[in-house]
Amino acid sequence: SIGKIHVLYQLSKAGKLCVPAMNVNDSVTKQKFDNLYCCRESILDGLKRTTDIMFGGKQVVVCGYGEVGKGCCTALKALGAIVCITEIDPICALQACMDGFRVVKLSEVIRQMDVVITCTGNKNVVTREQLDRMKNGCIVCNMGHSNTEIDVASLRSPELTWERVRSQVDHIIWPDGKRVVLLAEGRLLNLSCSTVPTFVLSITATTQALALIELFNAPEGRYKQDVYLLPKKMDEYVASLHLPNFDAHLTELTDEQAKYMGLNKNGPFKPNYYR
Amino acid sequence: SIGKIHVLYQLSKAGKLCVPAMNVNDSVTKQKFDNLYCCRESILDGLKRTTDIMFGGKQVVVCGYGEVGKGCCTALKALGAIVCITEIDPICALQACMDGFRVVKLSEVIRQMDVVITCTGNKNVVTREQLDRMKNGCIVCNMGHSNTEIDVASLRSPELTWERVRSQVDHIIWPDGKRVVLLAEGRLLNLSCSTVPTFVLSITATTQALALIELFNAPEGRYKQDVYLLPKKMDEYVASLHLPNFDAHLTELTDEQAKYMGLNKNGPFKPNYYR
Amino acid sequence: SIGKIHVLYQLSKAGKLCVPAMNVNDSVTKQKFDNLYCCRESILDGLKRTTDIMFGGKQVVVCGYGEVGKGCCTALKALGAIVCITEIDPICALQACMDGFRVVKLSEVIRQMDVVITCTGNKNVVTREQLDRMKNGCIVCNMGHSNTEIDVASLRSPELTWERVRSQVDHIIWPDGKRVVLLAEGRLLNLSCSTVPTFVLSITATTQALALIELFNAPEGRYKQDVYLLPKKMDEYVASLHLPNFDAHLTELTDEQAKYMGLNKNGPFKPNYYR
Amino acid sequence: SIGKIHVLYQLSKAGKLCVPAMNVNDSVTKQKFDNLYCCRESILDGLKRTTDIMFGGKQVVVCGYGEVGKGCCTALKALGAIVCITEIDPICALQACMDGFRVVKLSEVIRQMDVVITCTGNKNVVTREQLDRMKNGCIVCNMGHSNTEIDVASLRSPELTWERVRSQVDHIIWPDGKRVVLLAEGRLLNLSCSTVPTFVLSITATTQALALIELFNAPEGRYKQDVYLLPKKMDEYVASLHLPNFDAHLTELTDEQAKYMGLNKNGPFKPNYYR
Repeated sequence: SIGKIHVLYQLSKAGKLCVPAMNVNDSVTKQKFDNLYCCRESILDGLKRTTDIMFGGKQVVVCGYGEVGKGCCTALKALGAIVCITEIDPICALQACMDGFRVVKLSEVIRQMDVVITCTGNKNVVTREQLDRMKNGCIVCNMGHSNTEIDVASLRSPELTWERVRSQVDHIIWPDGKRVVLLAEGRLLNLSCSTVPTFVLSITATTQALALIELFNAPEGRYKQDVYLLPKKMDEYVASLHLPNFDAHLTELTDEQAKYMGLNKNGPFKPNYYR
Repeated sequence: SIGKIHVLYQLSKAGKLCVPAMNVNDSVTKQKFDNLYCCRESILDGLKRTTDIMFGGKQVVVCGYGEVGKGCCTALKALGAIVCITEIDPICALQACMDGFRVVKLSEVIRQMDVVITCTGNKNVVTREQLDRMKNGCIVCNMGHSNTEIDVASLRSPELTWERVRSQVDHIIWPDGKRVVLLAEGRLLNLSCSTVPTFVLSITATTQALALIELFNAPEGRYKQDVYLLPKKMDEYVASLHLPNFDAHLTELTDEQAKYMGLNKNGPFKPNYYR
Repeated sequence: SIGKIHVLYQLSKAGKLCVPAMNVNDSVTKQKFDNLYCCRESILDGLKRTTDIMFGGKQVVVCGYGEVGKGCCTALKALGAIVCITEIDPICALQACMDGFRVVKLSEVIRQMDVVITCTGNKNVVTREQLDRMKNGCIVCNMGHSNTEIDVASLRSPELTWERVRSQVDHIIWPDGKRVVLLAEGRLLNLSCSTVPTFVLSITATTQALALIELFNAPEGRYKQDVYLLPKKMDEYVASLHLPNFDAHLTELTDEQAKYMGLNKNGPFKPNYYR
Repeated sequence: SIGKIHVLYQLSKAGKLCVPAMNVNDSVTKQKFDNLYCCRESILDGLKRTTDIMFGGKQVVVCGYGEVGKGCCTALKALGAIVCITEIDPICALQACMDGFRVVKLSEVIRQMDVVITCTGNKNVVTREQLDRMKNGCIVCNMGHSNTEIDVASLRSPELTWERVRSQVDHIIWPDGKRVVLLAEGRLLNLSCSTVPTFVLSITATTQALALIELFNAPEGRYKQDVYLLPKKMDEYVASLHLPNFDAHLTELTDEQAKYMGLNKNGPFKPNYYR
């Protein structure tokens, strides 16, 4: 997960990483499937299974427009929700604009929202102050990482009543009767309240296995005590292993085309930074 | 353009690059705007202005599912076209599957297509043999680069008649009366038959200007005779300069959050390879 | 439901209807919510809860492009499935084309499909012959009406083995090991394996209650022993009662505008046949 | 057009219609093509050809969510615009909510909008007061009917300067320098600044021709001096004539299915009020 990657890079920066490490989380295939494509489906699934909410016409704020946020926003918008986003990164914010989402600060919209979804990888993105300002019936959940994004601890306080209405669903009740619907106690909705399709597991497992094989087989010195991205060619290999499921037919470069592009006919086809 | 970047990397690889170069083409902001967001609009505009085609129900094949292809496919699908794609790269092919496009070889579908669009950056993607098999009225155009993608030279042959029906639109007429509609003689549709929004020009110009300033101001030795990506922070700066156009409100990290993420509050917010 | 409406119209035609009847099923509001908007969500929910399928890249055929079919197709397409449809009605078929779906006969595509969904209101739309030709793992379900659309009876035959893998999910196993995944034994997926949002129930209940009140209060002779559509004005009233949920602000006609349009400022705003 | 239909119904109501009239405008096929499908494309085309605007991230208000409004909203949303709508009819307003658009009063949002589009069929939907409050550069255009929707007359006043910047595009300049971009002087954008695809013309011409043939051939007494909808069967016939363009394959009812549904195998397949 992204959290553990942070730790690896911090260890590396501090010179404390004692073995080579492969950041498989940021391989294109894994990233897109684990985050974008998987969350596009699991946000809907997780919300439905816990709340039976109808998406059409709902006002939703998604905190964070990275791959997970993009997946959530695409799905919710497609089903008729009115979605706005919060971002700290101007590049992601501009992408949100281009994709048709208003970019707001959470405090500007919190009173009107029917659903609040966090996917930032950060902590205390939803604070007690904001929870206090939500409207009755507002649903709050976390698609990001760990259980840090919503300040759940602040809700464990004497003036608020917790009522477990079903598995993974708590009503937090304010003294005036207002209820906020908290899912999975702020832990990951996609892990707690949805399922991960076997197809995504296959992508992840294949990527991890290939990374381990690469590290094990690599000649002395190819990898130092640092964090590496999966070699592009392996990333492409993971993808190609999964194409037959979709009856997808790849085109092969002719010799002339490969030469023109300066590419090997078997890949890799893109520079390492390509996403 | 992507073509010139290829040349720069080849020069660098051959040790023949005599100055530092900045690959602004692959900065996130420029890439997304020039390719994804701009082409999403200009494919529609270019086709409409030249052919007045109705998109609904049309069968379209898009060759290449990079940023340009993704933009074209998104727009055409949204307007009711039935789109399939061709790809050489298994990662892009898998993305196409996930986005709901059949991945095919051009020869498998060429007979049924109403529109053929190239965006590969490669040469001879559409061959004379395939042009021979297109159906009457098929529209062929190039959104990729240069004028190499469609083998137009092969159409300048005595058995075929060219008829200019309006500016940028030629009918190529086969002996049996079949007509193929060739746009811009195979040159770039988005440059020849559409317009580039001022907003995109602003992004591009800002990125280029900042890259030049960075190269000029950089202390001795920061850049060698090699090809560099624009520093992430500058990329973010370009984006932030354009946010006010959309009345977009960025969220600022708190000190606690910045520390938790190991980030500077002013960015850069993402690793260099992030797209 | 549409099935019972058929019966009412048949009774009326045969002169056997002994009381006035209100066809609330075809009021705009009820129709759109019960069928289009509700099924757009429940097709995803029903499939996820029973099979945990990933939608991205799946080949799906939807039989019938009425309101239910339109809802199913919109949602599945939005989540990256590749959808084609079957239709008997040329108007609905042309709508499907315009919305970007290939219109096919079931037998032409049955071998390649990952999911088969019926929403025709008809019987034996999926026959034993077609079930025999499905590929291993194909999911079959019914979103239409009753349990007639899939010829489930034909599967209760000695050469096939039924294996209940979880509630509402049966594997039908062919002698060669091929498995077809049958949901809810061919009964309605949206009722058996999904939930109906309270918002939709509210629309339905309000429509039915208003229809009964209208029939009860109507002056002698307004309604004969026939089937009537809900008066447009009541249909609009149902809608207006539900707008505050979305914080939607209606515009009021000025006197001048009402006069120009020949409308009463309080509605009805559209002719009866408007949908 | 819808304007002329109003007149016909008013004449009929007043007993002043002296011949039978066929309301072809409200036949399903014509309505959907002329309004929904055609405008979905022509709104983009008309705006691009006149203003070269980039759609991504633009704030747009669409006045009226009938078929034309639905078409405009679908297209603009798909290309990344942030769209809200105004409505007088609660049913259409609720549909807008379900489709993910905020329903607002024009005066609530007018200051923030980049583009204002009218498609109501009404008059003075955009008033001088609202024009006064628009921001600099706001684009105003009419997709509805006639030239009544925007109060253009109010702009022909001495304190405002008109500047024709290109064909069909005027800048109206306020004393403080603010410019509003008025397209086609408030006349129909789709007729003035876009083209009608031949496919749509074919649908329209076929529908009109069949209506005339029906009126001409009808036995004495079938049609009185009133306004009629095109018989469903003819509407279906128009559609079926256009299906081969899309290589669409209709399914035929079996005898058993036709009997079960109480339908003739050759149609009509839906009740008259079906849309």
